[in-house]
Amino acid sequence: MSEKIPYKIYLDENELPTSWYNVRADMKKKPAPLLNPGTGKPCTAEELSHVFCDELVKQELDDKTANIPIPAEIREFYKMYRPAPLVRAYCLEKKLGTPAKIYYKFEGNNTSGSHKLNSAIAQAYYAKKQGLKGVTTETGAGQWGTALSMACSYFDLDCQVYMVKVSYEQKPFRREVIRTYGAQITPSPSETTEVGRKILAEFPGTGGSLGCAISEAVEAATKQEGYRYVLGSVLNQVLLHQTVIGLETMTAMDKYGIKPDVIIGCAGGGSNLGGLISPFMGRKLRGEADYQFIAVEPASCPSLTRGSYVYDFCDTGHVCPLAKMYTLGSEFMPSPNHAGGLRYHGMSSILSQLYDDGLMEARSVEQTAVFEAAQAFARVEGILPAPESSHAIKVAIDEALKCKETGEEKTILFGLTGTGYFDMYAYKAFNDGTMSDYIPTDDEIAKSLAKTPKI
Amino acid sequence: MSEKIPYKIYLDENELPTSWYNVRADMKKKPAPLLNPGTGKPCTAEELSHVFCDELVKQELDDKTANIPIPAEIREFYKMYRPAPLVRAYCLEKKLGTPAKIYYKFEGNNTSGSHKLNSAIAQAYYAKKQGLKGVTTETGAGQWGTALSMACSYFDLDCQVYMVKVSYEQKPFRREVIRTYGAQITPSPSETTEVGRKILAEFPGTGGSLGCAISEAVEAATKQEGYRYVLGSVLNQVLLHQTVIGLETMTAMDKYGIKPDVIIGCAGGGSNLGGLISPFMGRKLRGEADYQFIAVEPASCPSLTRGSYVYDFCDTGHVCPLAKMYTLGSEFMPSPNHAGGLRYHGMSSILSQLYDDGLMEARSVEQTAVFEAAQAFARVEGILPAPESSHAIKVAIDEALKCKETGEEKTILFGLTGTGYFDMYAYKAFNDGTMSDYIPTDDEIAKSLAKTPKI
Repeated sequence: MSEKIPYKIYLDENELPTSWYNVRADMKKKPAPLLNPGTGKPCTAEELSHVFCDELVKQELDDKTANIPIPAEIREFYKMYRPAPLVRAYCLEKKLGTPAKIYYKFEGNNTSGSHKLNSAIAQAYYAKKQGLKGVTTETGAGQWGTALSMACSYFDLDCQVYMVKVSYEQKPFRREVIRTYGAQITPSPSETTEVGRKILAEFPGTGGSLGCAISEAVEAATKQEGYRYVLGSVLNQVLLHQTVIGLETMTAMDKYGIKPDVIIGCAGGGSNLGGLISPFMGRKLRGEADYQFIAVEPASCPSLTRGSYVYDFCDTGHVCPLAKMYTLGSEFMPSPNHAGGLRYHGMSSILSQLYDDGLMEARSVEQTAVFEAAQAFARVEGILPAPESSHAIKVAIDEALKCKETGEEKTILFGLTGTGYFDMYAYKAFNDGTMSDYIPTDDEIAKSLAKTPKI
Repeated sequence: MSEKIPYKIYLDENELPTSWYNVRADMKKKPAPLLNPGTGKPCTAEELSHVFCDELVKQELDDKTANIPIPAEIREFYKMYRPAPLVRAYCLEKKLGTPAKIYYKFEGNNTSGSHKLNSAIAQAYYAKKQGLKGVTTETGAGQWGTALSMACSYFDLDCQVYMVKVSYEQKPFRREVIRTYGAQITPSPSETTEVGRKILAEFPGTGGSLGCAISEAVEAATKQEGYRYVLGSVLNQVLLHQTVIGLETMTAMDKYGIKPDVIIGCAGGGSNLGGLISPFMGRKLRGEADYQFIAVEPASCPSLTRGSYVYDFCDTGHVCPLAKMYTLGSEFMPSPNHAGGLRYHGMSSILSQLYDDGLMEARSVEQTAVFEAAQAFARVEGILPAPESSHAIKVAIDEALKCKETGEEKTILFGLTGTGYFDMYAYKAFNDGTMSDYIPTDDEIAKSLAKTPKI
């Protein structure tokens, strides 16, 4: 087709995906299974069902079924804020003077401010369907907590959020959004769980971490009748739900005859990146097309570019199963000056395996350069991006500038996962010139990696 | 047409309006002209051109031309964030159990978080075209300041924003968004202008007001070579630009054969309400269709429902022309406990005339009830509404509940002007149960009205 590409491509409701795509079905080397830390053996469905909803356990373990139907109730909810627009960044291209064509899939047009709602609503739906009373979770930057509180409010489920204490204090407004949706929110570590009390005794005054909040949320779920734990990233089930991002993008691009050469996403635990690239990766794995995939991570928390591919603990309290992933060690703490999300020590097992197989690249970028890209983007494209998303913007701009040098007319696609409205304290540091970069030393990483379990 | 109405109707780019609609052309009684406070005579184009850009002066004074073409550059910018979706509130209808059909036009999907960008980009464009260096303005809640900083950054214009001091302090993050777009921002009243110094001398420690910030911005514009003043509401030109809201809505509704019975909008200065209703009002004025229009204002600042229709000062410092409008008197100060915008003492001359002619109704609503409506809406429709927009939600819900009683299947349309991400301190008060209502006494209003000029 040669019709002019609109600024924003919105699919019609009848073009929205009706199944999620499970990339594991097409992977020759499957991601390694979760292990029971007690037995050292792969977790069974029965073991996992104490922590997760039954249907989600099935999705977590299924590496054979390529297309998993999206229940009608979830599709109805998706229609409230989807399709997300696929935007042609005409203004950014013009500003850069690049022959490259830049597209971004924008997931920030919903109150959670990010793509996290795609999986939150699915997890809340399955919890409700199982007749549960509620769910527990952790949140770091706060996007996931907001998304889950929205989803639970919609299905009238109780929602208990453990929020990393430093974020709880730095982001009082994020906290109020979560409260507005009726969720209970507790700064972590807290006195409400055994693991929280233990951590507080050991490190009084700690600001907490994602790994610690996970431990508390898991404990809270397993100790309350009718509760399960839900997680916003890393897990196979989460990447599965997030494939609506990539599926919509692929449909929109196919419709206009656009083929991306480079696909870029920021990567913390991998939910957005996995969701965006999975359908395209499927084509690559089946030999139908080829694409260059780039995962972008912060230089201050570089699990893919500087971590090891080993089994590790998923949480600080060691109450979760072990996962094989690129990791910096479960005790790795990104510098507190690193703003926003992308602070998790490990990476989704699916993405770890794809990266290890050479099917995807990874780059790490420094914080100040990321905010420079964010500001440049905001000024021409209007949208104020989340710090997380801005990692992808930075590399998309780098790639577009390379095209300017070589004259190549590449098509670049990146995921704009969300908006930065609740990250203005970080923008303030950037505006004030007080933001700094931090790169962990080899020694720090080695020390933390030394504590991964011996499997 | 009888095809199923989607959750969200997005027009195609080729269906977007190419002209703004000037409702004054179809009004039998024209809005009263601006008066020069010195001479008591209608302001001439020449007089106004010291304050406003030439092209905007033309638009301000033109009450004959019905359709005013939107320049191509502005239409290009509109495509970056428009069309705004027209949403069918299926979930809200279900929650209310009403036979009414509820639609809302959502203007919050852009970084300014509101409809304000529609006029900001137009005003910045004409300033650039005239070869100006920059513009000055005031902002209260901060939506307009954000929108203007975005528009100026796009056209590389200098932008100086006087922000009401109490908002400047209450909303540090709103301030940072404006800085991120490169604007200079000064808390008002300030020492940078004569009028500011005068007010500070008279009321040391004052938190400022919109009327005072307007005076400072106007002074700053007229004292700097190559600068003009721009305003985000009240003026005819602003309502004109905002008709993109109503025009898109009408096109979308016509396309699906939907006819609204009731059209509801919140009203501060009138920019959103005027923009939404103008094209429908045009049909009513031309006898082509009939609609019920409802302006919703806060009980704490009730210019339409409790003000007088007289000539009044537009600003505290009395540097602006006089406007005939429903007003509470230029010294009226809404209670500081009133959150968000909709704090201006007067109302657009166009809307004032339509209201006075009985073509539009008005209602005032109290703050706590507004936030109850906001929370209920957020929980089922997902979007976290701005306090301003929530006034319209409140009355839309009231109307839908009336339909539930009577069994009428009315079609209700309201304007959802923006998001509340930067108003979480107000949501916090609501969540904490510390929010209160305030209704000015008759005496307070009479006292303030006594100071309107004798014309």
